[in-house]
Amino acid sequence: MKRYRNREVWDFESEMPAGVRGVILGLDGGTTSTVCICMAAERPGPCGLLSEPFPVLARAIAGCSNHNSVGETAAKETIERVMAQALLKARASRSVVQAVCLAVSGVNHPSDQERIRDWLRDIFPSHVKLFVENDAVAALASGTMGKLHGCVLIAGTGTIASGYTEDGREARAAGAGPILGDWGSGYGIAAQALTAIVRAHDGRGLQTTLTYNILRELRLSSPDELIGWTYSDPSWARIAALVPLVVSSAEAGDEVANKILHDSVLELADSVKAVVKRLGLCGEDGKGSFPLVMVGGVLQANRSWDIGKEVVKCVSKVYPGVQPIRPKVEPAVGAALLAWNCFMRDFANELVC
Amino acid sequence: MKRYRNREVWDFESEMPAGVRGVILGLDGGTTSTVCICMAAERPGPCGLLSEPFPVLARAIAGCSNHNSVGETAAKETIERVMAQALLKARASRSVVQAVCLAVSGVNHPSDQERIRDWLRDIFPSHVKLFVENDAVAALASGTMGKLHGCVLIAGTGTIASGYTEDGREARAAGAGPILGDWGSGYGIAAQALTAIVRAHDGRGLQTTLTYNILRELRLSSPDELIGWTYSDPSWARIAALVPLVVSSAEAGDEVANKILHDSVLELADSVKAVVKRLGLCGEDGKGSFPLVMVGGVLQANRSWDIGKEVVKCVSKVYPGVQPIRPKVEPAVGAALLAWNCFMRDFANELVC
Repeated sequence: MKRYRNREVWDFESEMPAGVRGVILGLDGGTTSTVCICMAAERPGPCGLLSEPFPVLARAIAGCSNHNSVGETAAKETIERVMAQALLKARASRSVVQAVCLAVSGVNHPSDQERIRDWLRDIFPSHVKLFVENDAVAALASGTMGKLHGCVLIAGTGTIASGYTEDGREARAAGAGPILGDWGSGYGIAAQALTAIVRAHDGRGLQTTLTYNILRELRLSSPDELIGWTYSDPSWARIAALVPLVVSSAEAGDEVANKILHDSVLELADSVKAVVKRLGLCGEDGKGSFPLVMVGGVLQANRSWDIGKEVVKCVSKVYPGVQPIRPKVEPAVGAALLAWNCFMRDFANELVC
Repeated sequence: MKRYRNREVWDFESEMPAGVRGVILGLDGGTTSTVCICMAAERPGPCGLLSEPFPVLARAIAGCSNHNSVGETAAKETIERVMAQALLKARASRSVVQAVCLAVSGVNHPSDQERIRDWLRDIFPSHVKLFVENDAVAALASGTMGKLHGCVLIAGTGTIASGYTEDGREARAAGAGPILGDWGSGYGIAAQALTAIVRAHDGRGLQTTLTYNILRELRLSSPDELIGWTYSDPSWARIAALVPLVVSSAEAGDEVANKILHDSVLELADSVKAVVKRLGLCGEDGKGSFPLVMVGGVLQANRSWDIGKEVVKCVSKVYPGVQPIRPKVEPAVGAALLAWNCFMRDFANELVC
């Protein structure tokens, strides 16, 4: 352990009792919040994986850690503080940490990974295994027991599809934000619903129950007022929050709402198919099996109009081996599982050597 | 003349020589700039209209006068200053003004018109005829010799279609901005081109020469860098400025660029058709003739891929009586012509009475 900025966040360690066995840290850092999980570094079960329920010792939460949003200094401070908090809650200190996986949004280039890994090296003892990834990786790992293989489709306010192969290749599709056409996202769905209201009002589109349902929700008396509402606040999440109304309108039989959801299914499926194709996740004959982990509000299976299920149907027409997974644990646990897997693999390799 | 705020802008009037005959003011106030034209209030030619070249005495220009953008006080100050400047340049004073037409963007409700008219009444002598309209009206009048009848399609950074009947009814379509689906606008065309580059890059779309042409223009080395470029500055005009590259790519045979332009033609034609239908501009049999005034960079006829011409083709399939007009004068002259027409009509009515 060398120089680091926030020495005081680790003050608790001097009062920590000895005796806690090895632990793993998994961190999922997004634009809204950052979650850190401290998990016991238990030995694998008979199939070589950790068995459920996972041995989570503690969970800590903090704000944004996307360096593009808050700057690198603030992002690092948040990450360091939330890791210290998770260890404190688990009554452990850095000396018993075996591996750390940071999965942080905004980490897009090997240079980002290298920079953050260097910084982590100054915080943790030299034996600690360090892994730095994009937050999509944690989402994937949350559905694959920490195995980095397959495709993850995230669709909340935004959307991105990311894929990984066991030999370390990766590919992405979408994730470029609303101006650059992420139409399958929650923002995309809701913006199309608002557009449909305007079009129905000025005579360019079919009449739709979206008009009544959305204007009532927003307490507006006319579609003309939508313009003021829309541009008064540029937040994408505020618009994406209207997705449940689009889904309920479609469920009640509205043709326009149904078309918007069907189009969004095609968009989301296109992203998955592009990633699967580029990585050859489906094997040479196109029929090989691969996991598709689905994460985010748009893909939740709590409605009769199930966008995630339709996406899988659409993908399976081309790639019948698609294995849909809706994770039961949060992405930070995925990051911890990933760190555990990598640690066990390295550990096994060292034993062989 | 009663109280008004900026008495000093009119100080020049005390030094103005007598003898200037009646004048008309026409003002086109937009979000980018405000132009005021001072025109001689000449008698009509044999057909009852002013003959070209129009008797423009002076032209003055100022900044934004959209009250939604800069607030009402600043908007009024800009409007008053630019009117005073036009009169000063024409060596005229308010006492010889016969009529004023303000055509200002952001004037959307009768209450806006009434408020601005009340304010103008405090500035000008009581005999002056005052007309307050939306800026689309000036654009229409610039193509119809000041007659308020027909449809105007504006497509620059944004787009809107506005129609007016001789008996005072009006209707609009589009004009709701990019979030609410103005896909035929310059912004819409360029955003779709950027989207096409991202889709080609991540495997969701066809390869396109837009990638090379636009990345070279923006001095970016990879489509990945487009994301940073796009979100670093939220100005719609900056994105819309890429339209000429989409047009030249289409002219060179690029399939993706051609599809974007064809889609934009359909969108723009839909706006026109919706307005024509709602107002019945085409007569009862749908074949009646009506003017379609086309304004804005997207509709300029300086290229072999002529978006405006294609829009007219598309509209004429449904409404064969469409009479396309590309105005030769600027909208502020349209506003002056409108004021002149209204003044002459009222003058004739008064003579009859």
